[in-house]
Amino acid sequence: MTSVLYSEINEQPDAVTRAFTGAKPSAQALIAEAKRRDVKYVVLAARGTSDNAATYGRYLFEIVCGIPVGLAAPSVHTLYEANVVYRDALVIGVSQSGAGEDINEVIAQARKAGALTAAITNTESSVLAQTAEYVLLCNAGVEKAVAATKTYTTTLALFALLASLWSENRELQTYLERVPDAMGQVLTASQEVAPTVARTLIHAERILTIARGLHYATAIEAALKIAETTYTPTQPFSSADLLHGPIASVAVRTPCLLFVPNGKTAPMMNEVGDKLTARGARVIRLSEASPTDSLDFLPLVSPGTELLSPLVDIVPAQLLAYHLCLARGLDPDNPRGLTKVTITR
Amino acid sequence: MTSVLYSEINEQPDAVTRAFTGAKPSAQALIAEAKRRDVKYVVLAARGTSDNAATYGRYLFEIVCGIPVGLAAPSVHTLYEANVVYRDALVIGVSQSGAGEDINEVIAQARKAGALTAAITNTESSVLAQTAEYVLLCNAGVEKAVAATKTYTTTLALFALLASLWSENRELQTYLERVPDAMGQVLTASQEVAPTVARTLIHAERILTIARGLHYATAIEAALKIAETTYTPTQPFSSADLLHGPIASVAVRTPCLLFVPNGKTAPMMNEVGDKLTARGARVIRLSEASPTDSLDFLPLVSPGTELLSPLVDIVPAQLLAYHLCLARGLDPDNPRGLTKVTITR
Repeated sequence: MTSVLYSEINEQPDAVTRAFTGAKPSAQALIAEAKRRDVKYVVLAARGTSDNAATYGRYLFEIVCGIPVGLAAPSVHTLYEANVVYRDALVIGVSQSGAGEDINEVIAQARKAGALTAAITNTESSVLAQTAEYVLLCNAGVEKAVAATKTYTTTLALFALLASLWSENRELQTYLERVPDAMGQVLTASQEVAPTVARTLIHAERILTIARGLHYATAIEAALKIAETTYTPTQPFSSADLLHGPIASVAVRTPCLLFVPNGKTAPMMNEVGDKLTARGARVIRLSEASPTDSLDFLPLVSPGTELLSPLVDIVPAQLLAYHLCLARGLDPDNPRGLTKVTITR
Repeated sequence: MTSVLYSEINEQPDAVTRAFTGAKPSAQALIAEAKRRDVKYVVLAARGTSDNAATYGRYLFEIVCGIPVGLAAPSVHTLYEANVVYRDALVIGVSQSGAGEDINEVIAQARKAGALTAAITNTESSVLAQTAEYVLLCNAGVEKAVAATKTYTTTLALFALLASLWSENRELQTYLERVPDAMGQVLTASQEVAPTVARTLIHAERILTIARGLHYATAIEAALKIAETTYTPTQPFSSADLLHGPIASVAVRTPCLLFVPNGKTAPMMNEVGDKLTARGARVIRLSEASPTDSLDFLPLVSPGTELLSPLVDIVPAQLLAYHLCLARGLDPDNPRGLTKVTITR
């Protein structure tokens, strides 16, 4: 019996292909309207895994489109009932289920205030899809595992699609097509090495995940996946923030997953890796370098540009979480105490 | 020999008084200019402790002034050299030293792009103060301890001052005056109980700090203080995010510091407390309820409104970090491997 989580991890190349194709017309329509209205900034409203995906969206939009992006704090609207005036804004609600009341509330308020609103969701019939003016569907198929995987990567895909269309960046549009292939390759490349590395983590009492910039989303999503499926306390850090204080708390042998894809962040990530090694921490590197025999290495596969690496780089971390779960005799499909839809009032 | 950290924690009521008084004229000038230019949104750029303070600023501005606020991702500017177009924005750089190159870069770029720019800093002669059009000084006096305390609370004070003037909220302006008193009272009330609770944490291998909404800043700053001074892995959570997955990783007896000031977040915080207790975690509550004999309680003192509680509520957590540091035989003034100014390229 294959687990649902494992199947869904492996469905991702196909799901991402569907997301790119299916959402293109509505993405084009949304961007045309955003330009017509001369949108001055973007707000993303999300929780949990979708919020991690939104973190990628914020970096990508700012880097590729030069448009400022903020992440909404839903409690400002729901708990404090603030009337935040979104003038000249595009506000996007992100939720696989589209059922979270807090995100729906943000979108409803923003629309009422005259902002351009959109939904990124995997559920066409959801309240979120009905509340927003424009809907971009993940097209990931039903996601049964409690730990979200294919709705995360398809959400990243929709952000990448939006950014490539918004910026009219042809090169980026071409690289989009390479993503499903790169995901397939990293699945194959991780097949043997992910369970091997996972077994070395059976007794880990704490794991750190570390990345920087555009790749910070990968660190926070990897940490959430490992924590919720294996119950290991897992803390994500931007490498810059880690050096600002918390590095003092990294004990000898603490496993640190370092995401080091080729690109702008690699030099600093390697520096942080050296500092952690000097403190006696165990540095497990995820990179596009040639595979080594080391137990401290997981392969990445580049989709041709650092801008799209996060769509691929999360996959080995998902597999690591899955295999650590199995190695500990846990059920990957039913994490204790969690349900698929979390309602935050 | 009193430690520098302990002295600086106790200087906070005076420092906050100075911050309120000293910065009022420049705060008024900045807000007049922001209104004249019809600023549509605010961006805060910061790192480390200042970024935690900025998290309070974002909630407070959105709740009290109804103006959207985003936190900048400095690496977008420095690493990716993106040209983010801040139109009709107020961009505030926050740094006690004013020396961080990345924050200075954000402000320089924003000013060049025509945004209204301001600095919140403790260093009048800093590059940051010279780069921004408006300067709000913390007036905290020289901060010698590596772990920032009085520059954190004075930065919160400047955000509170700005929000009260921007919104012309007289009630809030009145409550500002009560803050130093409440800080003094919480220092007195914590005198005996903070070292007592700290001693029960000597063998803690992991600590969680949990809050929600406006008080999330208190959770992330408390976690940073405990991690950098006592080397205990300390992870902050918004109570909403905790329930979205990571609660699965909370083991029996894990100490969880719950910030439960009176106000909008209290009902949900109490619910989360019950869930954590049911999982066997150790819940240490910080609240304004009557002191109990329990080892799982630290007193808070209300400044009259929940909106200003974060200025007071961090104080017992700072003291807890300090006393845990002593209880473990560590030097509170010289955390290993850290320096006062962290330069991020």
